[in-house]
Amino acid sequence: MQNVVQSCGLWVERQRYQPWRLRPLKLQPLSPVPSDIAISRAQSPKPIGQLAEEIGVLPEECELYGRSKAKVRLSLLQRLQDQPDGKYIIVAGITPTPLGEGKSTVTIGLVQAFSAHLKLNSFACLRQPSQGPTFGVKGGAAGGGYAQVIPMEEFNLHLTGDIHAITAANNLLAAAVDARILHEASQSDKALYNRLVPRVNGVRCFSPIQLDRLQRLGIRHTDPAALSPEEVKSFVRLDLDPEKVTWQRVLDTNDRFLRRITVGQAATEKGHARQAQFDIAVASEIMAILALADDLTDMRRRLGCMVVGSSRSGQPVTANDLGVTGALAVLMKDAIKPTLMQTLEGTPVFVHAGPFANIAHGNSSVLADKLALKLVGEDGYVVTEAGFGADIGLEKFFNIKCRSSGLRPNAVVLVATVRALKMHGGGPSVSAGASLPKEYTEENLPLVESGCSNLKKQIQIAQMFGVPVVVALNVFKTDTQAELDLVCSIAKDSGGGAVPCEHWSVGGRGSVDLANEVKDAAAQKNSFSFLYDLQMPLVEKIRVIAQRVYGADDITLSPEAQAKVDDYIRQGYDTLPICMAKTHLSLSHMPEKKGVPTGFILPITDVRASIGAGFIYPLVGTMSTMPGLPTRPCFYDIDLDPITEEITGLF
Amino acid sequence: MQNVVQSCGLWVERQRYQPWRLRPLKLQPLSPVPSDIAISRAQSPKPIGQLAEEIGVLPEECELYGRSKAKVRLSLLQRLQDQPDGKYIIVAGITPTPLGEGKSTVTIGLVQAFSAHLKLNSFACLRQPSQGPTFGVKGGAAGGGYAQVIPMEEFNLHLTGDIHAITAANNLLAAAVDARILHEASQSDKALYNRLVPRVNGVRCFSPIQLDRLQRLGIRHTDPAALSPEEVKSFVRLDLDPEKVTWQRVLDTNDRFLRRITVGQAATEKGHARQAQFDIAVASEIMAILALADDLTDMRRRLGCMVVGSSRSGQPVTANDLGVTGALAVLMKDAIKPTLMQTLEGTPVFVHAGPFANIAHGNSSVLADKLALKLVGEDGYVVTEAGFGADIGLEKFFNIKCRSSGLRPNAVVLVATVRALKMHGGGPSVSAGASLPKEYTEENLPLVESGCSNLKKQIQIAQMFGVPVVVALNVFKTDTQAELDLVCSIAKDSGGGAVPCEHWSVGGRGSVDLANEVKDAAAQKNSFSFLYDLQMPLVEKIRVIAQRVYGADDITLSPEAQAKVDDYIRQGYDTLPICMAKTHLSLSHMPEKKGVPTGFILPITDVRASIGAGFIYPLVGTMSTMPGLPTRPCFYDIDLDPITEEITGLF
Repeated sequence: MQNVVQSCGLWVERQRYQPWRLRPLKLQPLSPVPSDIAISRAQSPKPIGQLAEEIGVLPEECELYGRSKAKVRLSLLQRLQDQPDGKYIIVAGITPTPLGEGKSTVTIGLVQAFSAHLKLNSFACLRQPSQGPTFGVKGGAAGGGYAQVIPMEEFNLHLTGDIHAITAANNLLAAAVDARILHEASQSDKALYNRLVPRVNGVRCFSPIQLDRLQRLGIRHTDPAALSPEEVKSFVRLDLDPEKVTWQRVLDTNDRFLRRITVGQAATEKGHARQAQFDIAVASEIMAILALADDLTDMRRRLGCMVVGSSRSGQPVTANDLGVTGALAVLMKDAIKPTLMQTLEGTPVFVHAGPFANIAHGNSSVLADKLALKLVGEDGYVVTEAGFGADIGLEKFFNIKCRSSGLRPNAVVLVATVRALKMHGGGPSVSAGASLPKEYTEENLPLVESGCSNLKKQIQIAQMFGVPVVVALNVFKTDTQAELDLVCSIAKDSGGGAVPCEHWSVGGRGSVDLANEVKDAAAQKNSFSFLYDLQMPLVEKIRVIAQRVYGADDITLSPEAQAKVDDYIRQGYDTLPICMAKTHLSLSHMPEKKGVPTGFILPITDVRASIGAGFIYPLVGTMSTMPGLPTRPCFYDIDLDPITEEITGLF
Repeated sequence: MQNVVQSCGLWVERQRYQPWRLRPLKLQPLSPVPSDIAISRAQSPKPIGQLAEEIGVLPEECELYGRSKAKVRLSLLQRLQDQPDGKYIIVAGITPTPLGEGKSTVTIGLVQAFSAHLKLNSFACLRQPSQGPTFGVKGGAAGGGYAQVIPMEEFNLHLTGDIHAITAANNLLAAAVDARILHEASQSDKALYNRLVPRVNGVRCFSPIQLDRLQRLGIRHTDPAALSPEEVKSFVRLDLDPEKVTWQRVLDTNDRFLRRITVGQAATEKGHARQAQFDIAVASEIMAILALADDLTDMRRRLGCMVVGSSRSGQPVTANDLGVTGALAVLMKDAIKPTLMQTLEGTPVFVHAGPFANIAHGNSSVLADKLALKLVGEDGYVVTEAGFGADIGLEKFFNIKCRSSGLRPNAVVLVATVRALKMHGGGPSVSAGASLPKEYTEENLPLVESGCSNLKKQIQIAQMFGVPVVVALNVFKTDTQAELDLVCSIAKDSGGGAVPCEHWSVGGRGSVDLANEVKDAAAQKNSFSFLYDLQMPLVEKIRVIAQRVYGADDITLSPEAQAKVDDYIRQGYDTLPICMAKTHLSLSHMPEKKGVPTGFILPITDVRASIGAGFIYPLVGTMSTMPGLPTRPCFYDIDLDPITEEITGLF
């Protein structure tokens, strides 16, 4: 009896929150800083199971994927449900320029500083990069210099298969759409019904997902024999209009020849050819759902609500109507678990989801953030990253992601570089391969000062939501002290903290000042609020974002956009939040307008909906959803040593 | 000093072959036999790391993927290079019928009998199933009844991502092909050269893969400035003929609308639209390469040799010419490691590669077989499976796989069922959903006897290669003793052993007799030889297979096929082995001809080549390389309980 009590006690003890026993990896930065892959390879990561143990993940909550990656089970959320969350920090940036700002390196440098140098628990939550650009132009996305996730090749390739699972689920749905159109076109109601509800071992019955559809149709029978011919007809015919199919296929490959295609040209498809396209896999609505889902139940529900097109009578047709929801959930059952990796200094990182930042919301997953907030504990810090500039990624983080998750941020880190600010101040354009104009390599205070207009505007955007802001000034070796001082002083005048940081060249040690400033900011009282109420009319929500965030005078809607808005109102989708699909290269819709454009009217050319993800996305111009390969893709330099298994050429 | 010697000694000891300490899982078969997923779920698999340890895989050779799957590193082959191989058993079948024969269940039942009941080390080597059919018509492929790989849902979904890696590599190559055609069409030689060999930090140099191309072109310069304009032209222009691109895109989804498509219709592709297609991912040549590769070096070499099409002057263009070989190898670096799983009785299984059995050779990987042969040790058994009937899968196993691997089989197991033999004997055709005609459920000795013609022919095919044959008669509950006795007696008259087996209903215990018979057969002296010599003319090799294996009187070649043969001879590909793409439903090219057709001439309609995989494949009729979804795909029944995470509806 006493043994039972004792072992129960031990079990209860094990279930409690465990203080971290993190053993950081030592870093010995070299100068000049070597290539990213050389730095990554020079550091031996801890076995990932050891890191999981150090941060209080129980062995049964951890699924190893090789030596350097592990998925963490969602059951951890339940085990630690009474544990107070840590502080929630969001990293955003000024309006991006071709010179780059380094949001990912700041994110990673910051947690390296917190955990390895200040001995405060912290977690970075990053997006999984698309594999397509890795072989195209972009190279890797695991941070850079001495602020990286390691091993960088594992981060950039396949990871734990989440994007592959999304591709499989997305394309199963696409295949189901076209096959259904074909089968409906070539069969009578009766034949369709006999096939959809077949006699199995003499018994005929609806599957659960078919019963759901009957319910949506208002048909109360559960015996297949009881349906009237009209009811059979409405049950078996989705009557999808081939011209109004909105669901597209995806691949995680930069394949420009798939941007516009004709499918169904084989004789077996009996003349049902139609125009279609492939998008890059991370543009799939399923990726946006993965990033916003709260648990398996919520993910399954969202997958079922995805709209694939309209019927000829204008009704939305969903994955539920196609009967494929369960299969999609099955394909995504492991993808919902965030992947644990580590920084160069052996501190923990979650990599999970990476939705597009224009047609989707561009933020990593709610679940990774929630798991991390429990794991770091009350005094810890979770640093998560928003895509693009604050006008896009941060606005969506607040209005879409936080609204969906219920989480409230404690501080915003806004990343800027002297070089990028100079471009906003009117510096010359740059081109790949050419050497940088001297404006960027020599001191030029007027350009910096003028470019700080963009920084000030982005600080204001963050402040509009009532959250304290710290500017992280990502230092390059060509920056002068006077330039750095100028930016910091302007940022402080705008009410933000401001700290130069040097994680790229020395690792977390170079971001200790930033971490301290963030710590102070996160301790401040905070009056977070959303920018708009969901009950506001759709067009009003768009206008609020355009005027208050982008600085537009007003918006205009094309007739097509207005018609879509009317459709969505009629279909009851008008209480969803807004996800603007606008260029990230300017606060306005005109990519060439740097700094803070004014006096413009934002033209909404079209409006679309991701009903499963749960947002309406107005298009401001055309968004490319399939990148291409350049004449000399990076794959020319990528290779594998068959003996040592070392990879070269990723960067 | 003594310590050093001691720990060296320990290290050496650990590197040696370790006797197995396998702890089988107890099986308690129910009657009637429950559904496959119910059986799979009722058994708790061992942690896969424990199984790896039991069979002597060192921890550093094992990469866990969750709890029930692990990849095994190829370094094991080097560690155990002096260890003699076990016996090598190949499982093949009679000509397939819609009634199924159960090659996979026999394979699994046989290793369950060997390892769990006879206490002899054994390993099953299985193909990874395509995920497409799992959601279409076929359901799972992990065996069935009490002879299964568990967990069956892990076996059937994603596994460890190998097929996803193949998809990524295949499609990167496809994207590179079309992008290159576009870039060559829109740029001058000079512009192409400047982009392909750019100045980086002031220096211009060829990448290693470009140096390889220069060498193939006979250009000896290594300084980019030294090439003459003609040399530049031949270097930069692959001059691919868009009409002669043979490389197709793939997806692991049953998407019939992708069987024939037009790509490149967006304005950005400037009018370079062309017809193309998607195949199911397992039809990719990269899958065939994965199955035949000997190590990373060999895989990388084969990937580079893959031909994607012809230039306008008729020269083959390869992945090497496109500069993408290293990137393909990087994408495939983990896929090359076989995945360890377990049977219902806790015995080891490798799942690795699953090439098509018509346009490719339909056998699991050489590497899995090699690893398993070392692991089972001299007295152990490796049971590997060939696709389709013995006329196809077994012939290719011998002439392609064994030729490539250098391995020699010790015995053939030929799977048959009374029901399938009745169909070969002239039994009525069956249709899905309808109840079986009474010929199949009641005793009918004349049909059985007549159908045994097919069995005898398949036995003779196996014997032609000089390897002993054992017939495994997969027992159904409707089979009568007289029927079973008749089949066994006919098989024995043909010189094969013959044993009824009942693994499906009781697990390995039901295959102990079979295992003993196989053990005896494998101990026999064996006079293995190939059917043809590689130096034989291409057309002769095809004729030998048609006449000696299929029983054809002769072959005919269409003009197109003859032209291709002439091309391959000219290009020096004529010493490759032959991989016949013929229907599996008959020994002839006519699927409806059951039993042993005679008096036919085999028409070769076209001839193609998989140069990287290393075979020429003549087409006998059209082979579908992209399955479709039926009106009611199995996904209607597939679902996931969001709370328990249990999957329903897979079978």
